[in-house]
Amino acid sequence: MTETVVSSATREVVFGFDRPFVMIGERINPTGRKILAAEMVAGNFSRVESDALAQVAAGAHMLDVNAGIPLADEPALLARAVQLVQSITDVPLSIDSSIVKALEAGLAVYKGKPLVNSVTGEEERLESVLPLVKKYGAAVVAISNDETGISEDPDVRFEVAKKIVHRAADYGIPACDVVVDPLVMPIGAINKAGLQVMHLLNRLKNELKVNSTCGASNVSFGLPAREGVTAAFLTTAISAGLTSAIMNPLHVEIVKACMGADVMMGHDPDCARWIRRFREAPTLSASGSGTSAEAPTRGRREGGLRRRAAAAAAGAGNPGTGAAPVGAAGEGPPPSGG
Amino acid sequence: MTETVVSSATREVVFGFDRPFVMIGERINPTGRKILAAEMVAGNFSRVESDALAQVAAGAHMLDVNAGIPLADEPALLARAVQLVQSITDVPLSIDSSIVKALEAGLAVYKGKPLVNSVTGEEERLESVLPLVKKYGAAVVAISNDETGISEDPDVRFEVAKKIVHRAADYGIPACDVVVDPLVMPIGAINKAGLQVMHLLNRLKNELKVNSTCGASNVSFGLPAREGVTAAFLTTAISAGLTSAIMNPLHVEIVKACMGADVMMGHDPDCARWIRRFREAPTLSASGSGTSAEAPTRGRREGGLRRRAAAAAAGAGNPGTGAAPVGAAGEGPPPSGG
Repeated sequence: MTETVVSSATREVVFGFDRPFVMIGERINPTGRKILAAEMVAGNFSRVESDALAQVAAGAHMLDVNAGIPLADEPALLARAVQLVQSITDVPLSIDSSIVKALEAGLAVYKGKPLVNSVTGEEERLESVLPLVKKYGAAVVAISNDETGISEDPDVRFEVAKKIVHRAADYGIPACDVVVDPLVMPIGAINKAGLQVMHLLNRLKNELKVNSTCGASNVSFGLPAREGVTAAFLTTAISAGLTSAIMNPLHVEIVKACMGADVMMGHDPDCARWIRRFREAPTLSASGSGTSAEAPTRGRREGGLRRRAAAAAAGAGNPGTGAAPVGAAGEGPPPSGG
Repeated sequence: MTETVVSSATREVVFGFDRPFVMIGERINPTGRKILAAEMVAGNFSRVESDALAQVAAGAHMLDVNAGIPLADEPALLARAVQLVQSITDVPLSIDSSIVKALEAGLAVYKGKPLVNSVTGEEERLESVLPLVKKYGAAVVAISNDETGISEDPDVRFEVAKKIVHRAADYGIPACDVVVDPLVMPIGAINKAGLQVMHLLNRLKNELKVNSTCGASNVSFGLPAREGVTAAFLTTAISAGLTSAIMNPLHVEIVKACMGADVMMGHDPDCARWIRRFREAPTLSASGSGTSAEAPTRGRREGGLRRRAAAAAAGAGNPGTGAAPVGAAGEGPPPSGG
């Protein structure tokens, strides 16, 4: 299956249908964050630094870096943010701007193979962004809208995605380096948004065979308890084929939705990552929260810790008897006593 | 599409692929609950009562009632529990026992059309349980195992389910009154359990066209943070076609997973149920937690409250502009400021 490899100077992350889901931290983005915007314009990047570290500690495998502040010198700000974040973390970055000069400034200073966020199906964007992606050997997020806007018909969006993949090929960018964003609408306003995205994700996986990403939190805009809606979206989308998302890893509910989906998809062998992340047992505490960028890396070998965790899980789960599990008849282990 | 209707004396609940998910409370079950078991044997049903009320208040649309206590007079205990629960709640019940005489005792006192939990594909069970289901005009949970045990192959389980549906038809029980349990294994022991169930749920929906249920908490047995695993399972399973589950509604994480999946599936128009359940705004507080058995009822009309909630959601979600939603480029509304 298609695999998209991105990297920092020292670490690779792989997107793929047979891989754990890639969580991309969304927080380094001044849009809607007035304090962060003001600080960045004033040359104070301390919040960028703390946001980077907090997200990686919370489990982000990559970080999105955006410096989109009206009237500011975005190319300079983005380049500085990219350099700063790369100096304090080893996760690959998504370089995020709607300004081509800012993307280029970020690319010029980046160490490794980044994700360029983003190109659309608009001619002017295709012709200005794709040459940059090729020049720097990057991967690129392809947003499934074009000059006509965002279609509510997922099949129209599929055609836009296909056009971008083909145009990328014309520039020598392989399909595995194009990560399609199906575009997630606020479901409080567009009730079919979930179904639209699932349909499109299925086609992207099975027909176009490309990886995917999206801005996940958008789905819950305007709703109460929105992390619950975002969590349900992510779990559903992952089961439909979504392979990464730009999201907030500081909400444990969101991280659980992604890691739980990996468990369901069979992408967390022996539930080892889940156990490592959420187990509180003292013997495993050293690894309890240090889950940053664990599983999606390519060819990484896991040693004794994984075997121990797996053995613990198997022991708890009554392996091998074939008789332990039960169904709705209620013979199963209740969650708690009483 | 297939709809399964169950009822109490005063309320109907409908299972269906185009319906909100049906949450069946699992707590009234002495298996693994020593205190509850001892109390029930001693004739003290106060915990049954409080468990019933708490689960309905938490959003359960139905309650499973089980009185399986070794050496106890299970038929008498189950009949008493059924009568008690029906006297204090108006939700339909799932009458749960592996003892045919207990099922019959529960059915004899039940008011309305219950769910009988359960029959398997074993000849002796088919021939003893199905006549009861027909006699009392009930619906029945069909567990997809037989004399050969539980197959790890979901296609074998599908054949067992099909056999039960056909045998039920021989007894005059229509397929819409057979709710198949695909059997959920502990995923800590059987890593492919999630994929197996999703495959089987897809076949049940698209080929056999029957509703489904399962004991959801079994999936997370032995794992840490198990509600997170159960939540991810439920969301994934609902998107694959699961239409009900026996689960613990007292965990809000679990309820959110089900209601969030309804939002994703387009089964919560205007997100009205989600908003009603999770909104904290004072003007809606009277309905804030009183969500018991709201949406799956048949033909129920929702009035001013729903319209208000929908209007509020639409207002927050920027309806009709077509310009608000964005993708991974990060132009969307971040979850919080800073």
